[in-house]
Amino acid sequence: MAYAYWKSGKMEDKAVFDLFFRKNPFKGEFAIFAGLSECLKFLSNFRFSDSDINYLKQILPHVDPQFWEYLSGLDASQVTMSAIPEGYVVFPKVPLIRLEGPLPVIQLLETTLLNLVNYASLVATNAARFRITAGESVQLLEFGLRRAQGPDGGLSASKYCYIGGFDGTSNVLAGKLFGIPVRGTHAHAFVNSFSSLDEIKGNVELTKSYLNKISPILNVLENETNEGELTAFLSYAFAFPTSCLCLLDTYSVIKSGLPNFLAVALALNDYGYRVIGVRLDSGDLAYLSRKCREGFNLIADKFGLPWIKQLIIVASNDINEDTLRSLKEQLVEVNGEPRMKLSEDVEKINLPGKKNVFRLYSEDGLAILDLIQLCTEKPPAVGKKILVRHPFNESKRAYVCPHKVELLYTDYWGDNCLMQSFSTLQETKQIASDSLKTLRQDIKRELNPTPYKVSVTNEMYHFLHDLWLKHAPIGELS
Amino acid sequence: MAYAYWKSGKMEDKAVFDLFFRKNPFKGEFAIFAGLSECLKFLSNFRFSDSDINYLKQILPHVDPQFWEYLSGLDASQVTMSAIPEGYVVFPKVPLIRLEGPLPVIQLLETTLLNLVNYASLVATNAARFRITAGESVQLLEFGLRRAQGPDGGLSASKYCYIGGFDGTSNVLAGKLFGIPVRGTHAHAFVNSFSSLDEIKGNVELTKSYLNKISPILNVLENETNEGELTAFLSYAFAFPTSCLCLLDTYSVIKSGLPNFLAVALALNDYGYRVIGVRLDSGDLAYLSRKCREGFNLIADKFGLPWIKQLIIVASNDINEDTLRSLKEQLVEVNGEPRMKLSEDVEKINLPGKKNVFRLYSEDGLAILDLIQLCTEKPPAVGKKILVRHPFNESKRAYVCPHKVELLYTDYWGDNCLMQSFSTLQETKQIASDSLKTLRQDIKRELNPTPYKVSVTNEMYHFLHDLWLKHAPIGELS
Repeated sequence: MAYAYWKSGKMEDKAVFDLFFRKNPFKGEFAIFAGLSECLKFLSNFRFSDSDINYLKQILPHVDPQFWEYLSGLDASQVTMSAIPEGYVVFPKVPLIRLEGPLPVIQLLETTLLNLVNYASLVATNAARFRITAGESVQLLEFGLRRAQGPDGGLSASKYCYIGGFDGTSNVLAGKLFGIPVRGTHAHAFVNSFSSLDEIKGNVELTKSYLNKISPILNVLENETNEGELTAFLSYAFAFPTSCLCLLDTYSVIKSGLPNFLAVALALNDYGYRVIGVRLDSGDLAYLSRKCREGFNLIADKFGLPWIKQLIIVASNDINEDTLRSLKEQLVEVNGEPRMKLSEDVEKINLPGKKNVFRLYSEDGLAILDLIQLCTEKPPAVGKKILVRHPFNESKRAYVCPHKVELLYTDYWGDNCLMQSFSTLQETKQIASDSLKTLRQDIKRELNPTPYKVSVTNEMYHFLHDLWLKHAPIGELS
Repeated sequence: MAYAYWKSGKMEDKAVFDLFFRKNPFKGEFAIFAGLSECLKFLSNFRFSDSDINYLKQILPHVDPQFWEYLSGLDASQVTMSAIPEGYVVFPKVPLIRLEGPLPVIQLLETTLLNLVNYASLVATNAARFRITAGESVQLLEFGLRRAQGPDGGLSASKYCYIGGFDGTSNVLAGKLFGIPVRGTHAHAFVNSFSSLDEIKGNVELTKSYLNKISPILNVLENETNEGELTAFLSYAFAFPTSCLCLLDTYSVIKSGLPNFLAVALALNDYGYRVIGVRLDSGDLAYLSRKCREGFNLIADKFGLPWIKQLIIVASNDINEDTLRSLKEQLVEVNGEPRMKLSEDVEKINLPGKKNVFRLYSEDGLAILDLIQLCTEKPPAVGKKILVRHPFNESKRAYVCPHKVELLYTDYWGDNCLMQSFSTLQETKQIASDSLKTLRQDIKRELNPTPYKVSVTNEMYHFLHDLWLKHAPIGELS
């Protein structure tokens, strides 16, 4: 396409691109915008290397040689980018990134920007949904590396889960590169690798005697517990006396894992250390965690150690991504003239022209709606009533009087340089958390969430519909 | 875990790991094994850098300092790896990779190997399913970069789609790095960026006169066609006269895209070039492609250009991944003693011990079943009847007399070096295609496919069940 633009002399045509999405993922009514920092790094470094050009020459042998000179001189110096801050709660149809610059350059940037924003936003949104469901007090850890789309896909997942509201990751490289807290426990394989207490050099008698005392309390026969598992728990406790968390379901949580763990916990207590908890990785997690809690309470009371009641129970399971919806970027303006892609499907219409988006807040600090208007219009004013409209449905309109008005876009790139300093991962995580708090509860709930309103001004509405009437093909009934 | 192993003195314990999966993806009954080359590259380079060690020291401040010396000396020199060739059709429970070596090293390699195999195999399998559905004569192109899990996820997708049976990709970097054929067309944005024939410097009169002739034949009013679209198609034809393929659905396929395209096709024909076809990206693709073919036929007959009947029609749409199932790697043998993870769920049991897998073929060259047996057993012999059993269901057993016997494993890594040369991407793609041909049609069909049999020998069956009876917890009815 870049070559065809060049060939038609459209190298210097100015274009505006909006990067937006059409539908919220996970059957929800919101998304978290993420990936902006990576987009800025990409803009800063955008160039075709000599080896890129040589490769392109091979696969496009019939191209006018002057085009290669043009291409090798391209960078993002003529481009300006405004965007919503990374971490913000965002909604369908609202442009997340607005890019202006020479048509072929903008076109060449498109796929990479979509690639960097799509997956990042999807993962951050998923994480935020988990956080909302789990509540603030629960720890959420990401263990997904082995199922991710390759090594880099795994790194991105760890990063954007953290932004969206997770507390840590088992991906040690993500910890090293991004400073995300690293958490982990042992696996079933660790338990399987031990078979007898003889494999341990240290004192095992204390633990054995505790197991003998515990078993009748928990209604377990002594020979039902697996000795290899007990050995594994003990080894793990020797290695990590201050952070011992044991995986209970290699053999049987109730008949083996729980009594073995509690025996190790009591022995470790005698040495002045406290275990921190257990992990369950299969079976009926709700039932088993209740059974563990019952066991903790029994032993805590029996041995006068109330802290055992507070031990944590970690449940680990597959994170299911229900739906993967994608962002779409569309050309919306060339040389100041608005263009739109028409379609018989009203949902697929792009909002034309260079636009601004304002988020309007009510007195309680909650977001009322996002208002899309043309850049040529005056911004909405605090305390002043304005008419807002559904972009396509004529009958849906309302007056709104905002208590606070926020322009969603910040200029991030222009004059060939970054116009904002990068926010840290921690700051972006905080923005996501704060932004989610401005969203009404019924919009965030899992079942039948209320859609958040994305409206247009009256002027935008008429601009859009005049353009539509001018260009739309008229159907024929036959 | 590595630290806990080290702390318990298990550094030199020898372990065997099997990397396998439990369930075929996409509701099918087969998978394509991919990712092996990347695993071998990883083994060749496996080491902890100084900066890795420094980071680990920070996050694990209480670790015995001698452990860091141990860790910084680790590599894969003590490891041996056997595997099924990359590209083979494979089945649940059959180990794809068999790794032997020191317990902590094997454990440290696990997650990365799973990461490299899981996604690769998933994508290759998806591509193979598309290929089977599409048949051999249809071209399949991968356009997924903008929706992939980050840049590296996108590269992996392009590569493994190609292995699984696709013909090309729109990902130019994948073309450059892996030599995959690059294909692409223009986008809607390209059409939107043009509005009038005045934007073109070359001859437009010829095209306009063809449009006038074509419109009544196609039952379209002249002013229904969009001039910007016509301009875009012409510009694209100027740039790519020998490979012009136009996207028809920006405005209306039937009222605008098709007549505009055919006008350009006829004009280009006068200059001695032939367009190659059209792309449809929305709407009822079956209906629209039929309408396009009708239009091609009408114009071909009217203008005496029979080649127009043969123009290609490209349909582009989201590739949906139905299910993401994951591979699991489990510890199966430590110091020669088989270990297994017991579970009340019979499907979740690991097959213990160091095993070999043979694929048995019938006289017509089709695979009958995969036979898992202990490494200590004699391989099955051609022309000799053997008893094969379902691993868990006592009543399912049969005699089989193989016409050909194939050991699925090849030794790839040992004595700190690669034991096989890397196969090229093209070779792996061929292996996948050949391997799929050995699979019966009813196993490959989409609806209710027949499960392929993965059996064990009688000896393996008894070995497994004796071990199970020895260790399994006995449930209690209450």
